[in-house]
Amino acid sequence: MAKPYKIELGEREMPTRWYNVLPDLPEPLPPVLHPATGKPVTPDDLAPLFPMALIEQEVSQERWIDIPEEVQEVYRLWRPTPLFRAERLEKALDTPAKIYYKYEGVSPAGSHKPNTAVAQAYYNKKEGVKRLATETGAGQWGSALALGGNFFGLECKVYMVKVSYYQKPYRRVLMETWGAKVIPSPSEDTEAGRQVLKEDPECPGSLGIAISEAVEDAMKRDDTKYSLGSVLNHVLLHQTVVGLEAKKQLEIAGDYPDIIVGCIGGGSNFAGLFLPFIKDKFEGTKKDLRVVCVEPEACPTLTRGPYAYDYGDEAGLTPLLKMYTLGHTFVPPPIHAGGLRYHGMAPIICHLYRLREIEVVARHQRAVFEAAVQFAKAEGYIPAPEPSHAVRVVIEEALKCRETRESKVILLALSGHGHFDLAAYDAYLTGKLEDYELPKEKIEEALKHLPKVE
Amino acid sequence: MAKPYKIELGEREMPTRWYNVLPDLPEPLPPVLHPATGKPVTPDDLAPLFPMALIEQEVSQERWIDIPEEVQEVYRLWRPTPLFRAERLEKALDTPAKIYYKYEGVSPAGSHKPNTAVAQAYYNKKEGVKRLATETGAGQWGSALALGGNFFGLECKVYMVKVSYYQKPYRRVLMETWGAKVIPSPSEDTEAGRQVLKEDPECPGSLGIAISEAVEDAMKRDDTKYSLGSVLNHVLLHQTVVGLEAKKQLEIAGDYPDIIVGCIGGGSNFAGLFLPFIKDKFEGTKKDLRVVCVEPEACPTLTRGPYAYDYGDEAGLTPLLKMYTLGHTFVPPPIHAGGLRYHGMAPIICHLYRLREIEVVARHQRAVFEAAVQFAKAEGYIPAPEPSHAVRVVIEEALKCRETRESKVILLALSGHGHFDLAAYDAYLTGKLEDYELPKEKIEEALKHLPKVE
Repeated sequence: MAKPYKIELGEREMPTRWYNVLPDLPEPLPPVLHPATGKPVTPDDLAPLFPMALIEQEVSQERWIDIPEEVQEVYRLWRPTPLFRAERLEKALDTPAKIYYKYEGVSPAGSHKPNTAVAQAYYNKKEGVKRLATETGAGQWGSALALGGNFFGLECKVYMVKVSYYQKPYRRVLMETWGAKVIPSPSEDTEAGRQVLKEDPECPGSLGIAISEAVEDAMKRDDTKYSLGSVLNHVLLHQTVVGLEAKKQLEIAGDYPDIIVGCIGGGSNFAGLFLPFIKDKFEGTKKDLRVVCVEPEACPTLTRGPYAYDYGDEAGLTPLLKMYTLGHTFVPPPIHAGGLRYHGMAPIICHLYRLREIEVVARHQRAVFEAAVQFAKAEGYIPAPEPSHAVRVVIEEALKCRETRESKVILLALSGHGHFDLAAYDAYLTGKLEDYELPKEKIEEALKHLPKVE
Repeated sequence: MAKPYKIELGEREMPTRWYNVLPDLPEPLPPVLHPATGKPVTPDDLAPLFPMALIEQEVSQERWIDIPEEVQEVYRLWRPTPLFRAERLEKALDTPAKIYYKYEGVSPAGSHKPNTAVAQAYYNKKEGVKRLATETGAGQWGSALALGGNFFGLECKVYMVKVSYYQKPYRRVLMETWGAKVIPSPSEDTEAGRQVLKEDPECPGSLGIAISEAVEDAMKRDDTKYSLGSVLNHVLLHQTVVGLEAKKQLEIAGDYPDIIVGCIGGGSNFAGLFLPFIKDKFEGTKKDLRVVCVEPEACPTLTRGPYAYDYGDEAGLTPLLKMYTLGHTFVPPPIHAGGLRYHGMAPIICHLYRLREIEVVARHQRAVFEAAVQFAKAEGYIPAPEPSHAVRVVIEEALKCRETRESKVILLALSGHGHFDLAAYDAYLTGKLEDYELPKEKIEEALKHLPKVE
C-alpha cells in the first residue's frame, strides 16, 4: 500500500458546526465603535449593513454554531477539501519535518472564500434580502460572493478596483459568468465614487474606496445588504470549517501540528485553519503549539503598524475596529498578492497577537515566489501568491528542522490555486519581480490620519 | 443526511490497472502504416519515438495492464477524482433525467491530461530517456507533460504554436514553472521549423507544424523521445483510469448510464471515460448504452471527414493512421476550444464509429458557451470550452427527457476547468463570439492532400 499522500474525509465527516472562538478567548475583544459617536455599536447600528443572523454571530458567545443544512449542501460541492502530506517537498528539502497542507483550491472559485460567501448569501436570503453589494480587489472575494449569491438567487453588485478591472479581467469574467454585475470603482453609481472622480477622473481606485462605495450602496437601498469577505468575526467563524476538517484529517494521520503557518491579509483564511487548533492551546493541552502568521513586507500591518482603532474603509463609513493598522488611507505598493494588500486586520488575529498567543513575520515577494516555484515543482500544485507567503516560512521552518534534526509537524494553509496568477509567476521567472522596501515615512504619514478615539 | 451530490472514492479504491479495449474490440483495428513504405509499422520503426513499454501497450492484447506503483503515487495527488450528481442542473432544466459528471479539473494542471503525461514520463524514465519533446497548442498538453516530466526528473522541451505562445501566455508560464523549456513554433531549432520560417517568417504556426518539430527533435537526439497527448492507443489506455473510477462511483450511487456524453478532439478524455463502460456493451450486458461524442462544427472530423489513412502531422513525418480526417493540411478556424482543433482522431474512436458502436454530433461554439454558462450557474464549476461541447448535448438530452418523461441516467465527461479560458467566456458574454460555418470547398481542398495508400 502506498503512503497516504492525501488524507480525505467522506462527505459524512464534514463538520456540521462552525467553531466560535469568542467564548474561549483568554480576554474579551475590545468593542467595535460607532464611527460617528465613538460609542460601542449596537445591533441596530449594524442592521442596515448585515442581516441579523450575522450580527448575532459577530458577538455570539456560543462555542458551536450549526451550519445550516442548505449551506452544507453547497459546501459538499467541494468539501471536505483534501489534506496533503507534502512528502515530495520534504524529500526535496531533505528535512525530517513532516509537512501537511490543507488545500482550498478545489472550490469552484479556486480559493477558501466561498466558505463564507455561501453562508452569508444564505443568511441574507433567509431574511428577505434581494441584493448584495460588495467590493473586490483582484476579484477573489467578488467571485466567491457571485458564486454564493447565485446559489441562493441573490442579485450581486461588485465594486471592483478600477485598475484590476481593466488589467486583470479574468476574475471579473468569472463573476459575470455567475451572474454578478461588476463595475469599476470609483464609479458614478455612488456619492463616494462621484466625489473621488470629481477630484481625480483618472483615479485607479483602491480597496478602501471600493468598500466605501459598496457600504453606501447597501445603506441607501432597503433591498440590499453589504457583504465583507474577511476581517469580521462572523467571516472567520465560517472559515473554521477548514480547520475543523484539518484536525480530523490529522487525527487520521496520527499527527498534531507543532507549527501552523498561514498568510494574513484580512485574516480569515488562516484564522479558519488555526482557530480550532488554538482552542487546545487555550485549554492547556497543547501549550507549545506555534501559530505563525505571514504578511507581506510591502503591507506589514502587524509587524510595523500600531494597535489602534481605525476604519475598515478609506472614506470612514465603517465602524471602528481595534486592530493593528497602517492607517485607512495607506495605499500598499502593487505586490502580486492582491489579497494581502489591506491596511487593517481581523480583530481576533490582532487580539491574539497582542496577547502573544500567535507570532507574525513579514516576507518580501521575491523570496515568496522562489518558495512558490519550489513548492510547485515538488508537489505539482501551483499556489496562489497569497499562501505562497506561508509556503516560504514553512520551507524556512523545515530547513531549521534539518539543522536541528527535529521531525516537527508543520501544517500549511494553502488557501487557493495560482491559475489566475500566472502573470505574477511569469514576472518572477523572468526576473522582473520587484521587492518594495517600505520607507518608515510612508507609514508615519498614513498613520497621521488615524481617527481620534477617547 | 443530505443527498450525495458528490460521490468520492477512497485512495484505496483507486484503480490499480488500466483497461485495454484492444482485445475486446468487435473487429481488430486497421494496422498503422510506415509513412515511407506504406507497410505496417514494426516496433523497431517506432523505437526512435517512444520507449518500448509504450510501443508494447500500443498493440497489447492484454485486457488489464497494471498501473506502476510509481505512477499510482503521483495519481494519488488528485485521484480518485469526484463524480458529481448535477441535481441543481436537473432542477434548473426541470428534467426527470439523472445527470452525473466526472470531473477531472482537480488535477494540478486543471485537466485530464496528466493521467497519461505522468505514465509516459514514468516509462521513458525507466528506459533511460533523459529528455522529452512534444508540441502544444494552447498549452493544455504541454503543461501536463511538464508536470509529468518534472515528477520523474526528465527535461522537457515543448514546441508551442506561436500564436498561442504570444496570445495565451498563461499555460506557457505553467510549463515554465514546472521547469519545461517552451519555444514558439515554427522555430529555428529544427529543420522543419526553419523550412517554414524561410517560406514565411511571419507564420503563426499550427499544431501540425509543432508536431513535426517535436518528432524531428526526438528522432535526432539519442537522449530524447517524443510524447503525444492524445490519439494513440496507449494514451487512451492511460485515461481509462477515469472511466474505471466513474464506474465504481456509479455503482455506489446505484446507477448505470443510459447515455455517456463527451467531447472529442484527439479522443483521449472521452475514450478514457467511456471505454470501461462500452466493454459491457460488447459483452452484451448493456446493449442499449448510447455513447455520444461531440465535436465542433468548425472542426467536424467525424461528421464531415472521410475514413482514410492520414498523417498525424503537417509535414508527414508520423506513421499513417486509419482515421476520420479533414486532411493533415487542414487548418481549423480559431474557435476557443483549442483542444478540439485537430484534423484527425484516435483510431479507436474512429473504428468504433465506423462500426456504429458510438454516435457523433457536432455543435457550434455559441450554443456550446450558452450551455457552459447554464452549467456554471447551476453547478458552480466553470467548464473548459472543450467539455462544454458535451455539456451542450447533455442539456439537449435532458430536455428531451423532460418531453418524454423518462428519467434516463446521463454521464458527462467534464475533462477540465475553464479558469484559463475566461477570455472565451468574456467573448461569449459580450456577444463577440462567432460561429464558423465551414464551407464544403475548404474541406474538399484539404482532402486533396491525403496521402495515397494502396
